[in-house]
Amino acid sequence: MVDSSLDRSLEPALYGLMAYRELTAFERLSSDARFSPTLKDRMELARLAVTEYEHFELVRAALLDAGLEPDAAMEPYVDGIDRLHERTRPGDWHESLMKAYVMDALTSDLYAALGTGPEERRLLGDSARALVERVRRMDEQTTWLAQRLQRAIDDDERLAPRLALWGRRVVGESLTQARRLLDRDDVGPLFGGTDARAALLATLTQRHSRRMSALGLTS
Amino acid sequence: MVDSSLDRSLEPALYGLMAYRELTAFERLSSDARFSPTLKDRMELARLAVTEYEHFELVRAALLDAGLEPDAAMEPYVDGIDRLHERTRPGDWHESLMKAYVMDALTSDLYAALGTGPEERRLLGDSARALVERVRRMDEQTTWLAQRLQRAIDDDERLAPRLALWGRRVVGESLTQARRLLDRDDVGPLFGGTDARAALLATLTQRHSRRMSALGLTS
Repeated sequence: MVDSSLDRSLEPALYGLMAYRELTAFERLSSDARFSPTLKDRMELARLAVTEYEHFELVRAALLDAGLEPDAAMEPYVDGIDRLHERTRPGDWHESLMKAYVMDALTSDLYAALGTGPEERRLLGDSARALVERVRRMDEQTTWLAQRLQRAIDDDERLAPRLALWGRRVVGESLTQARRLLDRDDVGPLFGGTDARAALLATLTQRHSRRMSALGLTS
Repeated sequence: MVDSSLDRSLEPALYGLMAYRELTAFERLSSDARFSPTLKDRMELARLAVTEYEHFELVRAALLDAGLEPDAAMEPYVDGIDRLHERTRPGDWHESLMKAYVMDALTSDLYAALGTGPEERRLLGDSARALVERVRRMDEQTTWLAQRLQRAIDDDERLAPRLALWGRRVVGESLTQARRLLDRDDVGPLFGGTDARAALLATLTQRHSRRMSALGLTS
């Protein structure tokens, strides 16, 4: 059933953005995995990285189905996402875990807001919304990251202030990047009008704060 | 059907070795993927890395089926394989491709020699031999690497002498590591007696030389 009122011209942009975000999340996480303190952690982190790759494959398949070249679709988002990664290079394994946790959770919150308003629903078809929902579901992933961070903090009390500081840096850079994305004409409208987007940034910040508090960290 | 003449006490050691080799191959290849010159290459290399991870998962499942802890089984092979990777750190993307090609092909040749002699067949059960065969089949992978290297060499003639030199370094370190493995009491016997192992090292060298010649490189 095709809803003729749909204006789906923004879907390719969204897919390109999601594909590049998932591909880089895979690359960074798998690079950092080998600095894990134990082989058990290495195996877990490798598995999480491969989950990000599987998300990338889902989005890539959607791009190909739409007759689009994945690399061309990703291109507009390369600079922004690369800059974000360059500005948040983890100094060690714990910082790498924290970065993955902050960014994965924030990305999940951002995806959750996609096409949810009455106006924005017209901008995403059912299959696009189903895809976003599939990629967004990384509960298992973020749960593991949160628990592993909690254990590390419990084991070494000197970690807490350092990771709190690092978490603020990562979320600061991530929100800057999120704001730029929301301002873009190609994907911004998928998140609603100006007011909705400002409210979304506030929600992202608030939800991040709650996650940090749950770890006993000052956000 | 259980063959009571089987002495399968070496299988856990073999699985531990294979698991760690595949896990590190995944980590190194995915780390290097992001330095790819184009997004197409990055996507391809990420996919190859994930294939190595899938091999790791197969071996890990076999270890768990045998009631063994994967990390404990891998532990005896960590130092040797880590040292090999440390001594062959690629200076750029092309060296990374060449390293993956040389090592994947050599590993495939090494796996192919497992449990093939009449005596050694008794040391590996059917399921172990089937597992080795599954992990070994990376034709698609090595074909892609060989073609990509060929294209790079054709595009830039200055690459050939540098990659030839690098290939000699990588194979030299790899053969040193292979020789140490063949000398170990835990996995060595799976490759036959002293003469068979010496012959295997010669075969590995010869097959590597043929691959380099096919690329137009002096081995």
